[in-house]
Amino acid sequence: MNYDQILQEIYQEIQPYAGQGEPAAYIPDLLKVNPDRYGICLHTLDGQDFAMGDCDERFAIQSISKVFALAMGFARLNDRLWQRIGVEPSGNAFNSIFQLELEHGIPRNPLINAGALVMTDILLSVLEYPEREYLAFVRSLCGCDSIQYDESMAASERDNGYLNAAIVNMLKYYGNIENDVERVLRFYFRQCSVKMNCRELSRAFLPFADHTRAFSFDGTELTTSQVKRINAIMQTCGFYDEAGEFSYLVGLPGKSGVGGGIAAICPRQYSVAVWSPRLNKKGNSVMGLKALELLTTKTAVSIF
Amino acid sequence: MNYDQILQEIYQEIQPYAGQGEPAAYIPDLLKVNPDRYGICLHTLDGQDFAMGDCDERFAIQSISKVFALAMGFARLNDRLWQRIGVEPSGNAFNSIFQLELEHGIPRNPLINAGALVMTDILLSVLEYPEREYLAFVRSLCGCDSIQYDESMAASERDNGYLNAAIVNMLKYYGNIENDVERVLRFYFRQCSVKMNCRELSRAFLPFADHTRAFSFDGTELTTSQVKRINAIMQTCGFYDEAGEFSYLVGLPGKSGVGGGIAAICPRQYSVAVWSPRLNKKGNSVMGLKALELLTTKTAVSIF
Amino acid sequence: MNYDQILQEIYQEIQPYAGQGEPAAYIPDLLKVNPDRYGICLHTLDGQDFAMGDCDERFAIQSISKVFALAMGFARLNDRLWQRIGVEPSGNAFNSIFQLELEHGIPRNPLINAGALVMTDILLSVLEYPEREYLAFVRSLCGCDSIQYDESMAASERDNGYLNAAIVNMLKYYGNIENDVERVLRFYFRQCSVKMNCRELSRAFLPFADHTRAFSFDGTELTTSQVKRINAIMQTCGFYDEAGEFSYLVGLPGKSGVGGGIAAICPRQYSVAVWSPRLNKKGNSVMGLKALELLTTKTAVSIF
Amino acid sequence: MNYDQILQEIYQEIQPYAGQGEPAAYIPDLLKVNPDRYGICLHTLDGQDFAMGDCDERFAIQSISKVFALAMGFARLNDRLWQRIGVEPSGNAFNSIFQLELEHGIPRNPLINAGALVMTDILLSVLEYPEREYLAFVRSLCGCDSIQYDESMAASERDNGYLNAAIVNMLKYYGNIENDVERVLRFYFRQCSVKMNCRELSRAFLPFADHTRAFSFDGTELTTSQVKRINAIMQTCGFYDEAGEFSYLVGLPGKSGVGGGIAAICPRQYSVAVWSPRLNKKGNSVMGLKALELLTTKTAVSIF
Repeated sequence: MNYDQILQEIYQEIQPYAGQGEPAAYIPDLLKVNPDRYGICLHTLDGQDFAMGDCDERFAIQSISKVFALAMGFARLNDRLWQRIGVEPSGNAFNSIFQLELEHGIPRNPLINAGALVMTDILLSVLEYPEREYLAFVRSLCGCDSIQYDESMAASERDNGYLNAAIVNMLKYYGNIENDVERVLRFYFRQCSVKMNCRELSRAFLPFADHTRAFSFDGTELTTSQVKRINAIMQTCGFYDEAGEFSYLVGLPGKSGVGGGIAAICPRQYSVAVWSPRLNKKGNSVMGLKALELLTTKTAVSIF
Repeated sequence: MNYDQILQEIYQEIQPYAGQGEPAAYIPDLLKVNPDRYGICLHTLDGQDFAMGDCDERFAIQSISKVFALAMGFARLNDRLWQRIGVEPSGNAFNSIFQLELEHGIPRNPLINAGALVMTDILLSVLEYPEREYLAFVRSLCGCDSIQYDESMAASERDNGYLNAAIVNMLKYYGNIENDVERVLRFYFRQCSVKMNCRELSRAFLPFADHTRAFSFDGTELTTSQVKRINAIMQTCGFYDEAGEFSYLVGLPGKSGVGGGIAAICPRQYSVAVWSPRLNKKGNSVMGLKALELLTTKTAVSIF
Repeated sequence: MNYDQILQEIYQEIQPYAGQGEPAAYIPDLLKVNPDRYGICLHTLDGQDFAMGDCDERFAIQSISKVFALAMGFARLNDRLWQRIGVEPSGNAFNSIFQLELEHGIPRNPLINAGALVMTDILLSVLEYPEREYLAFVRSLCGCDSIQYDESMAASERDNGYLNAAIVNMLKYYGNIENDVERVLRFYFRQCSVKMNCRELSRAFLPFADHTRAFSFDGTELTTSQVKRINAIMQTCGFYDEAGEFSYLVGLPGKSGVGGGIAAICPRQYSVAVWSPRLNKKGNSVMGLKALELLTTKTAVSIF
Repeated sequence: MNYDQILQEIYQEIQPYAGQGEPAAYIPDLLKVNPDRYGICLHTLDGQDFAMGDCDERFAIQSISKVFALAMGFARLNDRLWQRIGVEPSGNAFNSIFQLELEHGIPRNPLINAGALVMTDILLSVLEYPEREYLAFVRSLCGCDSIQYDESMAASERDNGYLNAAIVNMLKYYGNIENDVERVLRFYFRQCSVKMNCRELSRAFLPFADHTRAFSFDGTELTTSQVKRINAIMQTCGFYDEAGEFSYLVGLPGKSGVGGGIAAICPRQYSVAVWSPRLNKKGNSVMGLKALELLTTKTAVSIF
């Protein structure tokens, strides 16, 4: 497969989408980023990598961080995890708390905010130094020690994060949060604030595409079966209420963030990260979605 | 892959689940079936087939029929289809009509009842002899001319199908049904009443797993891209509000029916049909689900 | 109280509201009526009556008919009625069926469509000649033998009544309808089609305001306590999701219909009927609501 | 009316209900109270008062405090109040936040928690010394300077008030809270913690029943029309999702609290307060409800 040429073609063909959509406005720090950035990077299992565009500029990974938290928690609790979080798609906007009320505090899956808040609570309970270990895991995945929390963004998100504060209080009301709500919120927003560039993010997702090597990073160990299950959850739940659309158009497990990033994997083939800050109405990167759709069309390889 | 041995092992390992669950009670005709039947059949792309258990007894395919309707409608309307039906998982029980109210009569996807009723309405509008052509398509897929509607079951389901009558009236209220509601209901229940055995059903799904040969059956033609998209929809929406669980445990696109059947495919590898009438609380076959979970575990091949 | 002068003043003061709102468009026959009609009639307990405007033109009472059905059913089942229907306000638009799903087929109260359909089912079960007896009861209440169903309107409403068909099928699904759904719908729409003028409607409501004389009309007998309870239900549930607003602004038990009519009572004082076809967005008569607000302001008498 | 004898008879007739229900368990301090207390006190407009049972023991008024906050806010904002809060019954349990999500942060009415939290926010914005002025208003209404907040109960409720914390964060998210969420919660729970006995509470509600004297207490002035409107809101919204039932059985405007108190008024006749800590499943006092039902039955006077 000539990935260099494919990334080149994709770049040409997504130009008509440049300028469409708006960056997320509810996190002030995100508005400081140039909204017209576009970068894509792809790592294959045989050790090659291909990049195009703004691949060296870091951005806040936001909800993509939920995949890392899921991996850490799943490795430690295994299937006991599912007593506190489901694996079903939410079928509603990413911030809906109606479902929490109907289902008495059990979030639908680990990739919506409610689920990630419970996962954060779990990490606070099982890890000795949660913030430090989370960062160490991410650094280990992408092989880069300079990955950091953006403390200023995390603090600003906490100050304005009323919806997540509502959700975590609801969860606590239903008995599904063990730690202090403020402690949970602080850690959650720090995870969201982690900054990575497309090269680092693609590299960090490569182990999720690789069933040949053991998944073992800084104390987080997953079996092949567990890695596949994380893939399955990304496939059905990774794009808020656009998960079906992504599955329909792209056909890869993945996760998006409101910072404009999307990471996805083609099992046994490659991992890919794309970034472009302008979002559609459902909160997913306009150019990012289109780029991945073109990628699976041009390679004629998806999971289906 | 020694599928014969795998089916044998599966048969042994699912015995502890025998007798668990209950057959669907709301369709009287389904209760006449021996609830302890179990059959499985698998067709590979290279032309082999493997069977085990009650593979020659026909059962009502019920909701599995929605996949055939989707194929027929998608072939004819292509992407215009999505103006009337979505592709997102429903995130609710299979019979919820709350979502219809919230979303003004646009069903979430073609594999829930509301979506299949709209699809039925579409087929009534675009086909000249809808009932005859539907049956011809299914016969052509499995290469068996004796496939029939069970008219008595269809009539009985219509007589007691108050929930589907409620749904189709809601859809009509929102302007998403063109034909007479009674006409739509009659055709819908006839599709559900189609009887096939595991061999025939597995055979009928093989073309959805095969991207090398053209999909062309009795006038219904689908491109490779369209076939993949039907796979994607089965993957995210095929198991009511257990779609995530199925994806998590099995990792194959598929569709279940309350008659106890499940059909699934492993793209580029095989199709499989399993049947056992006892259902779990979400309406999916207990032994069927377990058999497919064991199948992907033992073959170590899934889409992830 | 000089009611003549008050009705006169009201007439002057509501002129600025003339032309506001639109008549109900979903029932074709309602659009044949001159939308700028306005009539009001008031009957006092001491036997006087006062009228103003278009008081002799009959209109379809539509949902006001639900009060008559409630009286007939309550008289016959007494408190057993509440096993099948609640007495709580619905807190949602008049056509919501989400609540039915959440509450498993028990309508919130007898004055929303779902409740009235159950009430209609009850009347079909307990009355020998339901249509004839219903009409006889209404005629007896207002002392006028020429009150009739508008059969053409009833038939036309049935033909287009998809939402009510959805509701009655839902109710049947939950086991809360004993009779054939089509039979229930036909009788329900006949009740809605009853035509009365303001004089007749006001006269028909007078017995609900009168606790001194026995309530006994053509076989329907209610105790004082039952009459008060019907008042209480009208007070909390009579105006769809504008019941609180009506209670806040007017402070009288009453019931509105999409034909533009409103009937209300001031217990121990008077009954009143007002009619004007232009409706606000919640389906209540614009001039009718304003007239009643002015009435309780000018008389300084309400239930509060 | 011989109220002494009526209260005596009520006392006899409610004995079969003694021991039914449970006191609210989610507020630890409420469990310290003897659950078998029962007291009732009634004040007539002509200056008499009648009492029976445990009328001198103070209890936490809890949600009854919402009526006082409504009076203070309504007096100051008049109809501008309704831009931020509705007047419709909620039709759901007292703690539902689904409605907030559907209606974008506008609470249904001022007597549910969400509405009272917005009202608390309003008082924080318009009053100079909110806590002090609130207490002064309540003291002025009942003519007793020893009324106090129970600071310990307020603090304990805040510590465990996750649901209210969720609600106020939701409201803030939708822009309907101006002040700091913690500040709002603290003041809200202090209002709930106010302790009064039946004599004081009945006395405090008397001005809401009296349309002959000006409503003017410590700077809070309401017109007769405003007082009637508060009555109307109590009538339709005062008992969570049992408002219709209370209206049906009792027929008086009123408000209950989870401390077991209920205050109600019969306009132009009397005010009444009853207290008994055991609650039914909807959170209203079992013996209190029954006592008020007997009161309006025996006096044969209600608003209907």
